[in-house]
Amino acid sequence: MRQYPQSIEQVIKWFSKLPGVGYKSAERMALKLIDMPEREVDQFAQSMIEMKQKIRACQQCNGISDTQLCEVCADPMRDKTIVCVVEQSKDMIAIERGGGYRGVYFVLGGKLSPINGVGPDELAFDKLIEYVTSAKVVEAILATGSDVEGEATAIYAGRILRAHVNKVSRIAYGVPVGSSLDFADEMTLMKAIDGRREY
Amino acid sequence: MRQYPQSIEQVIKWFSKLPGVGYKSAERMALKLIDMPEREVDQFAQSMIEMKQKIRACQQCNGISDTQLCEVCADPMRDKTIVCVVEQSKDMIAIERGGGYRGVYFVLGGKLSPINGVGPDELAFDKLIEYVTSAKVVEAILATGSDVEGEATAIYAGRILRAHVNKVSRIAYGVPVGSSLDFADEMTLMKAIDGRREY
Repeated sequence: MRQYPQSIEQVIKWFSKLPGVGYKSAERMALKLIDMPEREVDQFAQSMIEMKQKIRACQQCNGISDTQLCEVCADPMRDKTIVCVVEQSKDMIAIERGGGYRGVYFVLGGKLSPINGVGPDELAFDKLIEYVTSAKVVEAILATGSDVEGEATAIYAGRILRAHVNKVSRIAYGVPVGSSLDFADEMTLMKAIDGRREY
Repeated sequence: MRQYPQSIEQVIKWFSKLPGVGYKSAERMALKLIDMPEREVDQFAQSMIEMKQKIRACQQCNGISDTQLCEVCADPMRDKTIVCVVEQSKDMIAIERGGGYRGVYFVLGGKLSPINGVGPDELAFDKLIEYVTSAKVVEAILATGSDVEGEATAIYAGRILRAHVNKVSRIAYGVPVGSSLDFADEMTLMKAIDGRREY
């Protein structure tokens, strides 16, 4: 018995497939399930199956949704002529948590990364152009990450968007709010100085 | 839309209940499931349900098993008169991976920890005494942890076992094999010197 019974090893194997989970963590997770009441484990498993059945891409913005249009796209109060272009649905939720933004989003589904075989055809650029023309978008805000791939994606998106949209902007990079200057790395500080505004 | 659709938040909530998983990690796990093929998510969920239905405590050693007797207790080649007392099934698997041990185990189901409300009645000491008397055990090896609670558990178990078992021993604590001396903390080094053997 150098292994757990087969049914446990199976669950450990599945947990190990999750991001950031190695064998040891997966083992602890499986053992935790064993300690949980059977009813809860059933609910946990059912919630996974249900989520997988319900979730699809929003027809308009390509973000994750459990309805044809996501909550933002379906909201009549949102300004459909301003679109914020993000890499993943996660980024959209993050900006929504901030609260102030009243436009809509477009989720590319990743970032350009030739090394991982992700070229322009793998991202939803066609759908983006289709949306900005049909919705008569006046401003596209590029909110991809500030890493090399995120920058490359912003450059590419900016280039193809300028033919259809009047104003293309990039979100500001600088010192995070609430953080002290000496915690920021040099690149961030340079960006913060480059992006300074009159006060 | 400051939150994911309900079905995703539900899965995130469940993942957050697992040990060592906060909201951010749970979020990444749920999003990973969304990217996985539906068939795999179903298999993942089914494996959890199946494990929960199959796994029970081994009738003899109290370890986790998917049969009445676990693999070790059911093995006619194992010496039933030597019992290694451990805190959890996990420890039993860890010793089994080492390979050399030919006796059987007994899983207490935790360690004494008054602060967490775990007294002797919460652990399987009665079942342990029942086993050592009925199986005519000649040696009990105490393999609980070397933290304060593990030591207390070993002391308590030793005290009640000595009335029924000829030899009660404690596993050796010392410098881990393959490790250099200067990585070991002072307590470990002291234990290693205390436990020195003729060479």
